[in-house]
Amino acid sequence: MKPLDLRLYLVADGTAANRHRIPEMVERAVAGGVTLVQLREKTADTRTFLQIAFKLKEILADWGVPLIVNDRVDIAWAVDADGVHIGQRDMPYKVARRLLGADKIIGLSVENMRQVEAANRLDVDYIGVSPVFLTPTKPDAKNAFGIEGLKKAVEVTRHKAVAIGGIQVENASEIMQTGVDGISVVSAIVKAENPRSAAEALVERIRGACADTS
Amino acid sequence: MKPLDLRLYLVADGTAANRHRIPEMVERAVAGGVTLVQLREKTADTRTFLQIAFKLKEILADWGVPLIVNDRVDIAWAVDADGVHIGQRDMPYKVARRLLGADKIIGLSVENMRQVEAANRLDVDYIGVSPVFLTPTKPDAKNAFGIEGLKKAVEVTRHKAVAIGGIQVENASEIMQTGVDGISVVSAIVKAENPRSAAEALVERIRGACADTS
Repeated sequence: MKPLDLRLYLVADGTAANRHRIPEMVERAVAGGVTLVQLREKTADTRTFLQIAFKLKEILADWGVPLIVNDRVDIAWAVDADGVHIGQRDMPYKVARRLLGADKIIGLSVENMRQVEAANRLDVDYIGVSPVFLTPTKPDAKNAFGIEGLKKAVEVTRHKAVAIGGIQVENASEIMQTGVDGISVVSAIVKAENPRSAAEALVERIRGACADTS
Repeated sequence: MKPLDLRLYLVADGTAANRHRIPEMVERAVAGGVTLVQLREKTADTRTFLQIAFKLKEILADWGVPLIVNDRVDIAWAVDADGVHIGQRDMPYKVARRLLGADKIIGLSVENMRQVEAANRLDVDYIGVSPVFLTPTKPDAKNAFGIEGLKKAVEVTRHKAVAIGGIQVENASEIMQTGVDGISVVSAIVKAENPRSAAEALVERIRGACADTS
């Protein structure tokens, strides 16, 4: 398996309004440099979720970019996705690992330092440090890590870490400089008029930040 | 595998209000004669759904009563349930069968005669003819089969058939006399003060109806 490249991790968050445009949006974003794609669907029925996942799998296979499915191990399994991303109220890591086997990618959201530490006892493939900043995409989140909290999480974790929540082109460099392995974005790409150039602008900041710290 | 006994099929429909009482309610209902249990959760998070499914699996194993999971193939897989029940907007039958293998029970909801006919081209283990009568549990349903429609569905299908929707002790005999293999109930047991005696009363009607037609 290729090493996991978390540098620009797109969370394609499906809503009734944008669902039909997701495959095209994802393809354009990947052309702009997205390195990993997660499909998240919190309101679609299973059949719709599955149909979009099948389409993304087909598109991403052409680009050699992994597809991660949020929460739904059955959807991941059905489309032979590269892995799942689980939150603290989804299937426990050990159950997901038992079902999916050692070769699939399993990422875990961590929402506070206690969860960062707990994740060190699991063989997850990466943690998603969430949220860095409060954002309307996750209205339930109460506490944000902030830049200092993110630095601390990177120090404490033994895993690869990706930062998520409120990341835009303007703060991408600062976030990469905390030492995370990548940034995860939703609206910075999903809501962009041009997903490809939005991704390209983010990639430029990520490269710049990596050059600064090397 | 034991032959599938659909006679009294309980759909344990979890809601925020009743969720904590489901395992005990199911156990009492099974003591009263329920032959098959489906766990349906449309609002719980995956971890909660999984926890209840694990509990039911444990309880039902003691009684030798199969556990069917509504929609979520991953939950069924994780707890090694006996099967899944899928609706027309859930995972397509062929995908679910490919994932679960030949030995698991797969039931399919059919909502009109066209779907009854389409199900004849699939190797489902049973169809759930839904709804017989309109009911508040499924507010989206627009058309009900009624007694005559149910008789027609039983004639047309090559599968075992269970009737669901608006079934109570008062109409259980009439419904059994259409030739269905069983009746499926939600509120007649879930909302009963005494789930065991509610199940016993239904069993009595089912036995009576079977004696009438034999």
